[in-house]
Amino acid sequence: MSQTDNLKYHLPISKSEIEAAHARIKPYIHRTPVLRSAMIDELAGCEIHFKCENFQKVGAFKSRGAMNAVLTLSESELSKGVCTHSSGNHAQALARAASLLNIPAYIVMPHNAPAVKINAVRQYKGEIFFCEPTQAAREKTLETVMQKTHANFIHPYNNLQVIAGQASAAKELIEDTLALDYILAPVGGGGLLSGTALSNYYFCQNACVIGAEPYLANDAFQSMKEGKIIEALPPLTIADGLLTSLGTFTFPIIQALVSKILNCTEEQIVNAMQLIYERLKIVVEPSAAVGLAVVLANPSQFKDQKVGIILSGGNLNLKAFYSSFEV
Amino acid sequence: MSQTDNLKYHLPISKSEIEAAHARIKPYIHRTPVLRSAMIDELAGCEIHFKCENFQKVGAFKSRGAMNAVLTLSESELSKGVCTHSSGNHAQALARAASLLNIPAYIVMPHNAPAVKINAVRQYKGEIFFCEPTQAAREKTLETVMQKTHANFIHPYNNLQVIAGQASAAKELIEDTLALDYILAPVGGGGLLSGTALSNYYFCQNACVIGAEPYLANDAFQSMKEGKIIEALPPLTIADGLLTSLGTFTFPIIQALVSKILNCTEEQIVNAMQLIYERLKIVVEPSAAVGLAVVLANPSQFKDQKVGIILSGGNLNLKAFYSSFEV
Repeated sequence: MSQTDNLKYHLPISKSEIEAAHARIKPYIHRTPVLRSAMIDELAGCEIHFKCENFQKVGAFKSRGAMNAVLTLSESELSKGVCTHSSGNHAQALARAASLLNIPAYIVMPHNAPAVKINAVRQYKGEIFFCEPTQAAREKTLETVMQKTHANFIHPYNNLQVIAGQASAAKELIEDTLALDYILAPVGGGGLLSGTALSNYYFCQNACVIGAEPYLANDAFQSMKEGKIIEALPPLTIADGLLTSLGTFTFPIIQALVSKILNCTEEQIVNAMQLIYERLKIVVEPSAAVGLAVVLANPSQFKDQKVGIILSGGNLNLKAFYSSFEV
Repeated sequence: MSQTDNLKYHLPISKSEIEAAHARIKPYIHRTPVLRSAMIDELAGCEIHFKCENFQKVGAFKSRGAMNAVLTLSESELSKGVCTHSSGNHAQALARAASLLNIPAYIVMPHNAPAVKINAVRQYKGEIFFCEPTQAAREKTLETVMQKTHANFIHPYNNLQVIAGQASAAKELIEDTLALDYILAPVGGGGLLSGTALSNYYFCQNACVIGAEPYLANDAFQSMKEGKIIEALPPLTIADGLLTSLGTFTFPIIQALVSKILNCTEEQIVNAMQLIYERLKIVVEPSAAVGLAVVLANPSQFKDQKVGIILSGGNLNLKAFYSSFEV
């Protein structure tokens, strides 16, 4: 691959670190299945292998990174617990990882977070600190929590142990599906995409890795074009897991190892989600459908290719979801 | 089991016939997975094993019975093709089975059948004959088709080869999940339930088989109580796969081998469906959720038991489905 042949940038995570992360988290996560649909293949004009992280613990790939981050803390770090700011899947994943190791998890969430997400964190015994729904309030509240508890901040994506954990999803896909031409992962903060690109580099290298992103949140596309991290856009897309900006760890890995970012419309996301429901008979969240959406939007690029798509998660508010079909 | 110890009624399908049916259809169907959810178990107070026929070919267990019926036709029968009246999963399943053997399938459907179902049959090259949406018109049209084509009528459930094929779903569940205390299957015409009961009798016998049915379509419950086939009720339930009356083959098997029929409300069906979506992350049709609905509605009966539930299918009109959550 051209982008790896003359790789000057020193990758911050090694092959053996990803192997170690995968071995470390294995007892705590599912090896999720890879599913196919003859009808989707026919429609897409290519051979698609869906890595089903919607079946992962807490319903999303985030379990992998959070688990690895917690398992690599020292004894003295563990005793202080972990903390993060997240209203999404990372919050649940971190609370679950902490509860498995019997350490506290402190989660900063906006007070208007949906009850279902609040309950999910509580169910894993996470302690919630509510804040105003602004980035500044989140960071301030997290700082207060850290000062009070000395807990270890586990960033949702800009953390090397988290990235090494997320890399295990693509590693499994590569092991289970030989000779892929493309691997697609959705991109929000870039934890999954950078991990996917690292696993392709170390364990496959024959595939092009592509990031998939809604037009309405195409800061990763812009960042690649501009060569610097562009801030996330206002939250307009239904793919609510993809609203964050790239991080200082994730962006350089993506620049080095990802071929390109492809964008899709909201309608394409809803159509892809509907196809996954109707043909694969599985539940995915909107953010998970962007990979299929960009494949269907770019038929000539993927024609007759062997394509792996990571379905990142399956957590969605059913009632909110119905209304998306009005798009 | 008391209902089998002193079985006087001569079962019309033998153990070896079910084994032969299973072996015969194996190349053409999926061995579907059995899934579990720790959270659903906690909520239900028992250990539930979900047999996922939503992942079956054409999205429903009906592929099994239709395939077996077609594969057991003689050469001269095959040359004339097959026919049925159905607007549901059996129509697709029969059209698919016929197309795999390169014989014609003639399907009688009401002219107001949803486009998605018409297209599904056409996609398998089934030839559709439209009729008025009444039982009389269906039967008359089917008769005309049979006179014209001499095709073999494959009844959706009141056919021994169909029942033997449906029995393979419970046979797989029993093979994959040892020592079940209960096996639940939804009951409409009784093809799946009678097949399930036969497989339990021949391959397990330790479990009680229970039929699950909406109150709004509880003709099977009434039939068991009255000791004779009670006609189906007006189509009011969202479980639109369970609207048919029991058949002359299915009812005696159910009388002999099924412990009882349990009913559930529409709200219980919707809640069960939502749990399956949110916890198992899989798509099921309303008719498939009645098994879980009756388990949740009868906690004391199932407490601490090992329960197998057949999720019968995953074909639903997404838009129609959303509105069901207004129940």
